[in-house]
Amino acid sequence: MDTGRMEAFSDGVLAIIITIMVLELKVPHGADVGALWPLLPVFLSYILSFIYLGIYWNNHHHMLQVTASVSGAILWANLHLLFWLSLVPFVTGWMGENNFAPAATALYGVILLIASFAYWLLQRTIIVDQGRNSVLAKAVGRDLKGKLSPLLYTIAIPSAFVHQWIAGGLYVLVALLWLIPDRRIERALATRGSSTIKRKGS
Amino acid sequence: MDTGRMEAFSDGVLAIIITIMVLELKVPHGADVGALWPLLPVFLSYILSFIYLGIYWNNHHHMLQVTASVSGAILWANLHLLFWLSLVPFVTGWMGENNFAPAATALYGVILLIASFAYWLLQRTIIVDQGRNSVLAKAVGRDLKGKLSPLLYTIAIPSAFVHQWIAGGLYVLVALLWLIPDRRIERALATRGSSTIKRKGS
Amino acid sequence: MDTGRMEAFSDGVLAIIITIMVLELKVPHGADVGALWPLLPVFLSYILSFIYLGIYWNNHHHMLQVTASVSGAILWANLHLLFWLSLVPFVTGWMGENNFAPAATALYGVILLIASFAYWLLQRTIIVDQGRNSVLAKAVGRDLKGKLSPLLYTIAIPSAFVHQWIAGGLYVLVALLWLIPDRRIERALATRGSSTIKRKGS
Amino acid sequence: MDTGRMEAFSDGVLAIIITIMVLELKVPHGADVGALWPLLPVFLSYILSFIYLGIYWNNHHHMLQVTASVSGAILWANLHLLFWLSLVPFVTGWMGENNFAPAATALYGVILLIASFAYWLLQRTIIVDQGRNSVLAKAVGRDLKGKLSPLLYTIAIPSAFVHQWIAGGLYVLVALLWLIPDRRIERALATRGSSTIKRKGS
Repeated sequence: MDTGRMEAFSDGVLAIIITIMVLELKVPHGADVGALWPLLPVFLSYILSFIYLGIYWNNHHHMLQVTASVSGAILWANLHLLFWLSLVPFVTGWMGENNFAPAATALYGVILLIASFAYWLLQRTIIVDQGRNSVLAKAVGRDLKGKLSPLLYTIAIPSAFVHQWIAGGLYVLVALLWLIPDRRIERALATRGSSTIKRKGS
Repeated sequence: MDTGRMEAFSDGVLAIIITIMVLELKVPHGADVGALWPLLPVFLSYILSFIYLGIYWNNHHHMLQVTASVSGAILWANLHLLFWLSLVPFVTGWMGENNFAPAATALYGVILLIASFAYWLLQRTIIVDQGRNSVLAKAVGRDLKGKLSPLLYTIAIPSAFVHQWIAGGLYVLVALLWLIPDRRIERALATRGSSTIKRKGS
Repeated sequence: MDTGRMEAFSDGVLAIIITIMVLELKVPHGADVGALWPLLPVFLSYILSFIYLGIYWNNHHHMLQVTASVSGAILWANLHLLFWLSLVPFVTGWMGENNFAPAATALYGVILLIASFAYWLLQRTIIVDQGRNSVLAKAVGRDLKGKLSPLLYTIAIPSAFVHQWIAGGLYVLVALLWLIPDRRIERALATRGSSTIKRKGS
Repeated sequence: MDTGRMEAFSDGVLAIIITIMVLELKVPHGADVGALWPLLPVFLSYILSFIYLGIYWNNHHHMLQVTASVSGAILWANLHLLFWLSLVPFVTGWMGENNFAPAATALYGVILLIASFAYWLLQRTIIVDQGRNSVLAKAVGRDLKGKLSPLLYTIAIPSAFVHQWIAGGLYVLVALLWLIPDRRIERALATRGSSTIKRKGS
């Protein structure tokens, strides 16, 4: 089965998740600039979640670029990832509206942790399906970033109860780690030679 | 007429339905973990509906994979299915916010029952259009699961007034039945030989 | 320029319009079946608007099937149509929540009237662009339904102030007129011969 | 990497942004025409933002038409643009609900200014990636409109505090400037010869 429709559906869900988050930025009642002030934490958490979802979309895009076909297991691993990402607007809103309160900031990390596990599970399912010698298997390699992120989330979650900015700083750090696009897949694709690259969506 | 745009539109509608359901998970006012407690039934009903919509998307995807072209009747049978699925967020919210109250739990089953009928109607419309010897007709075969599900819903609806967990348990059971991906179509495709498989979206 | 992305964008907007309408069906506070009763007019107006948007999507789909390329003017005529259709959820909600009050029922007709004009304008823009001998020009022909609908809306709007069910009945009548899929384009395509049919999205 | 999925994702996000803006048009409680009166500023600001987002979608569409491939930098420059455009519904709602109050009208201009910068950055990133002799580089040329718009926004923002209609008038003026579709790219494509035009999405 082709990856086209799974990508289209994932794009749709991710586009909606990334956009409905902005609905948490509720139009304030006052008409002066001061009325915007209480929205600052909501806005900051929106920026952070927008970047995280952008990273997920980016890496998802790269990963499916080197996935030739889709099985039932892959479809469900993908839906499982989308389920946890669909909770990001909720935890973003809770964290933002409570000015980064410890419990909310910790829960934000819990969702990030589970989502990173769900992403790893999808990656694993694809590799099992495509074989150990597939481009993806080689591109992922030792997957340093994929192992470091859950570790940092696991440190961040309890530390939110010590001080929320420790957790917040760690979330920003993980985002920065991933902002650098995943060159591994691009490199693996380049080595394989562009003549055999699977063309998709065209 | 090509199936491409009907799939794209259905993907869009299903992606939105699956995502706006999360808006029922309203950000609580309290900032401690206890504030999340009242959201538990909403969250549980969200998980159930997410899985149901995932199953519908999955089966829809499989079915259209073996549909060569789209007629006016198929377009309307598809919109009819999407209409009933669009009510899932409403019944999910009602059931979740009322802690699985009998009437809400029964109505949830009513919508699932009508949606399963609408899916059957779409399947029938495609088979009539494509002919008795089409891949879909062979893949569907006796359609045991398709006949068992409405039966179980019909038992679940009145039993919600006896005890809501009987109905809830039956909904979970039907979901589990379908979570096993629809191998019939994959098998029918495999028998037909992959060389003649209709390529779509590419 | 290809029609692909304009179709994708229109599908996205129409899918969202058709789905956010269901958000007007607000989850009631009561947990018994009686709590659903006040939602009946909202539900009825939702059904009507769902069918109307389905008709628009269907006809839009048919029309772009015979459109070879897209110019700047066509893009803007399309956005103009989407603008008026984007107001359908608003007028549907107003009409439904006020139990088909005269002003709301009339305004519903006003939006339908303007949308039908916007559709005609898009059709005209495409015909001007593609030429008088294009498949679309022949398929549209005398465009009886396209001329009858605005006439019926124009009768319906003032009659909403006499009795809302006259207007409501006329809206249902127009919907029924269009529910019969637009065979003209299918017929025109068939005459042209399927070998020269423009393949799109594939 | 192909531009297909980046376009699909951008279309999704833009379609949602353009559509959720209509949710700010909240269904009024009264049932007579007078109840619509307070919604007029919200409606006017909705029209303006709809046109702006239409312009962005249009120009984005044109620009990617002459973009052959997508790099990591382009993906992020695109997400950066989508981030600022995602704030348009918020500033539209704030401006509309406060009857074009000075601060809200100024903030609307600030978001337009940043979005125009983000668009320029995306354009620059693509040109750097595709080379100085690419079709896009030639099509953009001296980019008069692209330089005039931020200038006019910069004048409009402080002038909102003198009188909001000066700012409002300038926003309408910029929209009119851009409503004329970007013929430069169409012209550049025509010069290059249609035989070598990159076909996309087909």
